[in-house]
Order: sequence, then structure tokens, then C-alpha cells
Amino acid sequence: MHTRTRILVGQSGGPTAAINASLAGVIDTARRQGLDVIGMRYGIEGFLQGRIVDFSERLVDPPDMQLLQRTPASYLGSCRYRLPDAQEDESPYIRLFEQLKKFEIDGVLYIGGNDSMDTINKLASYGETIGSDVRFVGIPKTIDNDLILTDHTPGYGSAAKFIATCVREISRDSDVYDLKSVTFVEIMGRNTGWLTASACLADERDAIAADLILLPERTLDEHALIERIRTILDQKNTVVVAASEGLRRPDGTIISAGFGDNSQLDAFGHESMLSGTGRYLSSLVKSELGVKSRAIELSTIQRCASHIASATDLAEAYALGGAGVQAVNVGATGKMCALVRLEDLPYLCVPDLVDVVDVANREKHIPSDWITDDGMGVTDELRHYVAPLVSDEASPLFVDGIPHLISPLT
Amino acid sequence: MHTRTRILVGQSGGPTAAINASLAGVIDTARRQGLDVIGMRYGIEGFLQGRIVDFSERLVDPPDMQLLQRTPASYLGSCRYRLPDAQEDESPYIRLFEQLKKFEIDGVLYIGGNDSMDTINKLASYGETIGSDVRFVGIPKTIDNDLILTDHTPGYGSAAKFIATCVREISRDSDVYDLKSVTFVEIMGRNTGWLTASACLADERDAIAADLILLPERTLDEHALIERIRTILDQKNTVVVAASEGLRRPDGTIISAGFGDNSQLDAFGHESMLSGTGRYLSSLVKSELGVKSRAIELSTIQRCASHIASATDLAEAYALGGAGVQAVNVGATGKMCALVRLEDLPYLCVPDLVDVVDVANREKHIPSDWITDDGMGVTDELRHYVAPLVSDEASPLFVDGIPHLISPLT
Repeated sequence: MHTRTRILVGQSGGPTAAINASLAGVIDTARRQGLDVIGMRYGIEGFLQGRIVDFSERLVDPPDMQLLQRTPASYLGSCRYRLPDAQEDESPYIRLFEQLKKFEIDGVLYIGGNDSMDTINKLASYGETIGSDVRFVGIPKTIDNDLILTDHTPGYGSAAKFIATCVREISRDSDVYDLKSVTFVEIMGRNTGWLTASACLADERDAIAADLILLPERTLDEHALIERIRTILDQKNTVVVAASEGLRRPDGTIISAGFGDNSQLDAFGHESMLSGTGRYLSSLVKSELGVKSRAIELSTIQRCASHIASATDLAEAYALGGAGVQAVNVGATGKMCALVRLEDLPYLCVPDLVDVVDVANREKHIPSDWITDDGMGVTDELRHYVAPLVSDEASPLFVDGIPHLISPLT
Repeated sequence: MHTRTRILVGQSGGPTAAINASLAGVIDTARRQGLDVIGMRYGIEGFLQGRIVDFSERLVDPPDMQLLQRTPASYLGSCRYRLPDAQEDESPYIRLFEQLKKFEIDGVLYIGGNDSMDTINKLASYGETIGSDVRFVGIPKTIDNDLILTDHTPGYGSAAKFIATCVREISRDSDVYDLKSVTFVEIMGRNTGWLTASACLADERDAIAADLILLPERTLDEHALIERIRTILDQKNTVVVAASEGLRRPDGTIISAGFGDNSQLDAFGHESMLSGTGRYLSSLVKSELGVKSRAIELSTIQRCASHIASATDLAEAYALGGAGVQAVNVGATGKMCALVRLEDLPYLCVPDLVDVVDVANREKHIPSDWITDDGMGVTDELRHYVAPLVSDEASPLFVDGIPHLISPLT
């Protein structure tokens, strides 16, 4: 009955520094094409409860769009809701398509990671079985960079830029005293090492910053690590190790669980979370080598450090938001917007559409030959892959010295 | 016998984002005044071993001085050496004045914190007793901002800028899901809350970022904290607490010790390796309130995040380096260069000289009336004090997307 195409957009999964840039790309592109945009509050979960955000009168000033792109986390709010298989439980699908009908939605864009692509895949399939003409397209975002069929994911470049910057700064900080020391920088990424590997960009020609890079794609032989550190300490004072939070031993046990029984449960009897890899390895080094050692967790800031976001990352996130609008507008469904790299140097990467069924529930690992033979470093292939993704700066709007962010939704 | 005045400059104590700006101020000013500059490698400790850096042919390009100012940590290297009382052990003094004579030093500038001012004080006193005409002047630096007789210390503003920026970003990150959660951001400062208090700058008019600020100047009643968080959670989803690493209970026990005895004494008798305050409080909240809670340690990055240094801070650090050169050049000794604030708005702060004997071994705490009555927040006086210190940005030189730093000394 309605004449203008209406697009519903949602954000899902963990926040990043770039997810709002994709939202800005959706809103801007839709408006320029004369489409209406409605946002899901708190993803599919909020939409099932009818919680929406109308963009017809919101974020209409161009500076707001710039601020939105520079604001970390999910402007619309997020969820970690996973749709059941429709064969097992059709009820959320029925409810969801009722909502889509009620709000006269023509196309759904879902900005998220692996689970969100699973959601898009399930909704597109279900829509097909009931003969719905609503289109479903996914827009990738995850700092983990673990989605397949896309050269990389928006959010990764900004996280990598923060990580490499911090590792470089930490490397200088750790080298001020005339004594032997080993610093572990614990970096996110439970199953894939893309974030940890980006620490290689901290190296400068005359100053290696990340002496060792330990990735979850390889198991860690603690004895070999200690011997390797011992060798490096013979040549210089300071060793900095970029270590993934998800490191495992050859027997499959997770390194962070290596602490004694005391630390697996905290004072209140809670199980400690995945983290502690750096602290464990630091303790090991103190015991085995008798040198000063410390662990630094980059923690959540990795995914929300908008103040040093990669302009390339934000531009690509924005472009994929726009590509999503184009896709639903021409009738595509069951697709994910992807990035195809045409050139490393000069870097050239363009949007593409892939089948979301091929992406959902799969995981992209670092290719084996991008890791050095000893499993404690990365090759130039990896450097060339990640280098362009951190390039250029999205200067924040500093107000009173602190980066200004878009006003939160209320 | 020598005609040109020779200045010896050293860096001591923990590194900061601004300590190299003071070094740049010393070098530039000395050169412009026709003085020679020699650096101590690894502070007094290295100098006692005769380890020096000659600046006559080093860092002579103007761009190097810009890079030096933007490089965190101690370019010259640092130490944590504490001079004994001369009455108890004169030997290091004898050795040190022999070295000063050997290198024909006229003035010594020592850039550091409380312990470094103690060193300057002792050397000036000893020099006086032996009739030496070598001048000794201290240049303050510490992220902790705990030196008295100076409005603030170089290094603090840059750390505060990073802290406030991260707390603002973390606050957005923590509010993406539609559920109740409490996030503790653990911030450095063993005995003084200046760094933690700077989290107040994360607040925006329409978005409170740091709901509670817990300072070591006040003891923490855990029950009162839980009840306060419970009240805030009645009104909104997310509570962010900026918590000092050095929080203590009313009975004097340290909060982080809730996880077992992880404290030890360093060379100066400080309790070291504090950390765990955020994790302890997070666990407490889970138990008492049954809501999601997490702890984020800003860790070492607080003191080395040059990528978001305060331009005001770097400019003041540079100016105090220059003031130190002026001071020794006119014959001052036993002094510390200090900052005197003339105006809050427009901010106006100028260098001054104070007696280092009055500074050494004392500690500046947050005034009691700058903390709210409930002990869980700060007043506008504190906001007005810290706000100008984080202002303006010292744009890094980005090379391939990562801030470029000066080549390390080899």
C-alpha cells in the first residue's frame, strides 16, 4: 500500500568502532535514494518487542552523521539473540514477519558478525518458504575479522590501528630501565589471531616492537617459548610478546586456565573469564627466567577506541552500509555485502555481494603460510594484508580536549 | 677550564607521555643559549657508571625535536635509584661528584617525580657542604600529579586525556545491550586520586559516563557502594565506576587484597603490583546484585598513550625543561621548576621556581572539598581544575597509519 521503500536496519553482536559508520552509510544512502529508514532498538530482540527508532526526524543534520561515524559501540543498541531453527520453533519467525508487515518493511539490513549472518540467512530462507517479498541482507562487522568470503570485516582495521599503536607505545615504555624484562600484551581473539597479528604493524625499521606474536592458530609449547625469550634476552633488554587471549597448549588445554585452582574461582566463587593468558605467561617467565615480567590486557578498549579509528575502516564500513541499501533496493536477498581487494598497493578494495548462506557459522583463520615456521611470528604476507586497513585517520571532533560523540538514543 | 656552560640532564622514575617533551625543552633551550647538553643514560644510576649521551651531534634536525616530544617513555632511559643519606653512606656522592668534575658539568637537571626531587635535594645539599658550584634543579614529571608546590605535574594532563577518552568510549560500549550491567574501570594512582578523578571529564551534557568515581583519598564502604549502584540501576541500565587501584576499606585493608596477598615492596618501600581492585569489585557486584559486571584495567597504557597526548601538557613539559636551563644558567640550585596557575578561564599557567627541599618526599592529595559528600564523586572545583590540562591535541605524525616515534637510543 505504501509507495516509498522502507528499510529496517539493526545492529547486533559486540560493538566496534566502525559499526555506526555502517549505520550512517545506510541512513545517508537511503535518504539520497528517497527511501525511508527505521532502526531496530536492540537488534532483532528489541524489534520482536516492537521497539523501533524512526529516522525521519532524527540525525538530520550533516554534522550528526560525521559524529555518528566517530562514535563507538552500537547507536541503535545490540543483542545476542540467536534465532532457533524454524522447523523446531516457528513462533519467533511468525512474530517477526508480523512486525515486518505492521511496519511495512521492504528490506532488512542487519549489521553484525557471524551470528548476525546466521540470522539473515535464516530469515531469508524462511521468507522464501512463506513467499514473503521482504529482502534480507547482512552487513559485516566484527573486530575479530573472522568472516569468510570478504577480504576483511569493518571494525577490524580500527581495532588493529589501536592495537599496533599501543604495542608500539608499550614497547617504548617497557624499555626504559637497564634491566631484563618481558612484557606480554594480551589481545582479543578467542579462535582467530587476526587482532593479535596486527601487532606486527607496531614494528619500525629501527625498532622491533612486537618481538614475538602468539596466535591461536598455533598451539603454544611453553618450553619453546621460554627458550626463545631466553635467546632474545641475550641480545637485548626487553622482550614484548603480543599474545592472543585464546592460546592453547598442544594438548588442547587453554593457557589462561593454567593458573592454580585458586584463580579459576575468584573470592566469590565465580569462574574467572577467558583472560589471564598474559598473566599466566608473565608468571611463567618470572619463574623460569627470573626476570621482571608484566602482563597488559588491552581489554574492551580494543573494540571501542574510536579516538584512533582507521579512516579507511570507517569509509569501508560506510560504503558497505550504502551497498546494503543498494542491494535491497534492487531486490537482492540472502546476501552479505563483502569487500573484495583488487590491489594491495595502491590499496583498492570494492564492495561486492556474496551468498550469506556460505558465510554463516564459518570462521576465517590466518592462513598457515602467513605464520612463521616457529609459530611465534607473522610473515610479510600478513603485514601487507593488514597494513592498508589501518591507514589514514578519522580525526575526532575534540570538545574541551575529549572526543565528542553523538548524543545517545533515549 | 671550559668556557661553555655544560648541562647534564637525566630522566628518572616511571615513564610518561610528556617526559621527553621536557627533555626537548632542555635541549632546545640550552642550544639556543649556547650551552652544551649531555644526557645521563639510565638516570643517576647510569651516570654513576659513566654512561652518558652527547647531544652535540644527536637530535639536531628540528623534526627530531617534534618527534621526541611525541614519543612516550624515557628517551634517555630511567632508573629507580635512591641515594642514601650522605651521613650514612657518602660513597655514591663522592663518586657522583667525581663524574661531574670529569665531564665538566655546571648544572644538573633531573626530570622526575617525588623520588627524583629527593635526589636533587640531597645532591644540592651535599654540593653545598663540599663547596661545589654545580647547580641542581628538578623538573617535575609524574602522571600521578602528586607533587606539592606546583599547580600540577607534566604527564598528568596527557594521562587524564587518555583516561577520560577511554571512560567515555567504554561508557558507550557498556550500554549496548538491554540489560543491567556494572563496569569498573581501574585507574592508576596508589595513594592519590588525581588520575581516577580525571574520569569526570568523560561526562557529556546529555550522557554521564562515569557514574561513580572512587578515590583513595576516601575509604570505601562496600555496602554503601552496592546500595548506591542498586539505586542507579533502578533508573538506568548501565553503571560505570572509575575506581582507583589504591582503594582501601575503612579498616585500612586494601580492596585489591581481596584476591589474596599480591602486594610487595619496591626499592622505595612502596606497595607495588596493586591491581585487582576492579576485578574484586566486579565480583562483589555480581554476588550482591546478580547483574552482569566486568572490570577493565587501563593499565600501563595510561602513562604512555602519546597518540592522544594533551598539547597543553606537552607545551608545559617543554616550557619547564626550558625553565630548568634558565635556572641553572642564572645560578639557581636546590630548586624545582613549578607551574603556577594564574587563571582557570582563560587558562593561564606560568613557570616558577620553588625550593626542592619543600617538595621532596611529600604528597599532594585531592582537597577534601573537591570530593562529594558521599565520597563517590568529584565537585565542579575538580572539573575546573583538570579540564584545561587535557586541552588541545598534539597531532602525531602518522606513518602508514601508526604514530611515528623518534628512533630509540642505541
